[in-house]
Amino acid sequence: MKSEDILKGLRDRDPRGIGRAISLVEENDPLADEILSSLDHSLIDQTTILGITGPPGAGKSTLTDRIITKYRSQGRRVGVIAVDPSSPISGGAILGDRVRMMGHALDQDVVVRSMATRGRLGGLCAAAGAAMRILAAGGCSIIIIETVGVGQSEMDIIRIADITALVLAPGLGDDIQAMKAGLLEVADILIVNKADCAGADTLAMDMESIARESGSKDKDKAKVCMTVASEGKGIDDLIAAIEAVDASHRESGERRTRRDRAYDLEVLDWALEMIKPSIIERINAWDHDRKGAPRRHAAKLLEQECLRISE
Amino acid sequence: MKSEDILKGLRDRDPRGIGRAISLVEENDPLADEILSSLDHSLIDQTTILGITGPPGAGKSTLTDRIITKYRSQGRRVGVIAVDPSSPISGGAILGDRVRMMGHALDQDVVVRSMATRGRLGGLCAAAGAAMRILAAGGCSIIIIETVGVGQSEMDIIRIADITALVLAPGLGDDIQAMKAGLLEVADILIVNKADCAGADTLAMDMESIARESGSKDKDKAKVCMTVASEGKGIDDLIAAIEAVDASHRESGERRTRRDRAYDLEVLDWALEMIKPSIIERINAWDHDRKGAPRRHAAKLLEQECLRISE
Repeated sequence: MKSEDILKGLRDRDPRGIGRAISLVEENDPLADEILSSLDHSLIDQTTILGITGPPGAGKSTLTDRIITKYRSQGRRVGVIAVDPSSPISGGAILGDRVRMMGHALDQDVVVRSMATRGRLGGLCAAAGAAMRILAAGGCSIIIIETVGVGQSEMDIIRIADITALVLAPGLGDDIQAMKAGLLEVADILIVNKADCAGADTLAMDMESIARESGSKDKDKAKVCMTVASEGKGIDDLIAAIEAVDASHRESGERRTRRDRAYDLEVLDWALEMIKPSIIERINAWDHDRKGAPRRHAAKLLEQECLRISE
Repeated sequence: MKSEDILKGLRDRDPRGIGRAISLVEENDPLADEILSSLDHSLIDQTTILGITGPPGAGKSTLTDRIITKYRSQGRRVGVIAVDPSSPISGGAILGDRVRMMGHALDQDVVVRSMATRGRLGGLCAAAGAAMRILAAGGCSIIIIETVGVGQSEMDIIRIADITALVLAPGLGDDIQAMKAGLLEVADILIVNKADCAGADTLAMDMESIARESGSKDKDKAKVCMTVASEGKGIDDLIAAIEAVDASHRESGERRTRRDRAYDLEVLDWALEMIKPSIIERINAWDHDRKGAPRRHAAKLLEQECLRISE
């Protein structure tokens, strides 16, 4: 397989070609650099990148499915990156498959890609950034990046998306209450899904009051969208809210600021990825005793000689 | 505050001294290197590091509380690191406070520390490793590292713990089923908490069958511990299971292998942390156009000159 064929597949909007290109980058194939360098990188600027995050059980997949349907009805091609808590051993991706099995399995204009967090010591920004650039080159104008769980991957998503939506649902327990505070401050759109369940209104009020108190939000941003994704309820209002945030970000320059920050994070992430193998090589080659402070060992290792990337 | 005072506080097993030392390391204070280098690093080898992981709502905090009680009754000093999905803006740590508020708030021999994942592009290994070394120097012989959520931080924990326990509970929804598979393969101990709730037996059978099929486990390891942490049920059996795994790992050499791997990860993580500021500095100083492939930009940046850590 030549990079020309891959690039042709992208231009032809062939979903399998898109998938292959992303795989080559993920596997750090020798062709990866050539593919990434040859992409039309102006296309990513024409996309909207929507991050969807929230705890397990909030109904993110169903909601994502509904959002996809909406954008498809506008004739837009949709790319989905499902960040998966997949197995570090089998490498099996789970979420992506589930998304794929939903309503859009046969739709050639919905390109779903799962991305494992397995084995990554570094951030997700380089890999997800590359995937988004490939999806854009393959004709997607909406890119949805979805993650399960809390912590690192969510924060990365907030860093690389234009707009981040946080989905919660009533009755998910104490941990969820605990994790809300941090995300509420940074999410652009707040959603209570399963809004027909007991406790939904209380949850929405709690979220609004926390979001307001954080001080980082104006009144509009602290407003919560109520959805029942399984029945398709509230989706039109949600899409309207997303579009309003997008318009406001474009007008204020926030979109440009976020894109620039994301670009720099991609560069940083790639640089760290590139430098990592040579550090690992040195650690493995070094007959260290594994006594004493690891921090000192690291400093010595870096001082020994200056580090070049191995090309 | 001098590093001598901090180190004296550690030797005196003063919980506040321990907390201060960890804070200085987390804040990358100039004293951090001195403190870490002056620790008695032989003490960490005498500890048992227990990772507890699982999705929100599984009852990890309650379970951790019960495990602490058990180890305290054996006269052991317990350190707890709660990895928090905390706010990237306010920096508020939430989980740790909750653990602290439980049964052991006044017990000087339970040292709870929360550790935020905020702002980290890199792994958690350096920060958590340093905290564990400080806890060990402060007299803790059991160190529990607990995390909420799935994905990166859990995998990091599995990498740095001697023994990892995965806690699930019935009725937590589809996402949870999806995330089980990956963790089931790597966890040493499988726990169904809230075992008195409907669906517990089915969940346990599912877990056992997935764990067996993964092929990476012998029969003993695929056995699930049933607990009702809120009533203290099943905790004795769980502690026995932990001790059995520990003994088996010591005999087989698995403990040493894991410790060596964790040490090298700490070194790698520190090296990346140390090199990151100089890369960020170069990205900020560089008048790049943010067009084209970020990967190419990163490669150029690294090629421009060899990178030294700034000391």
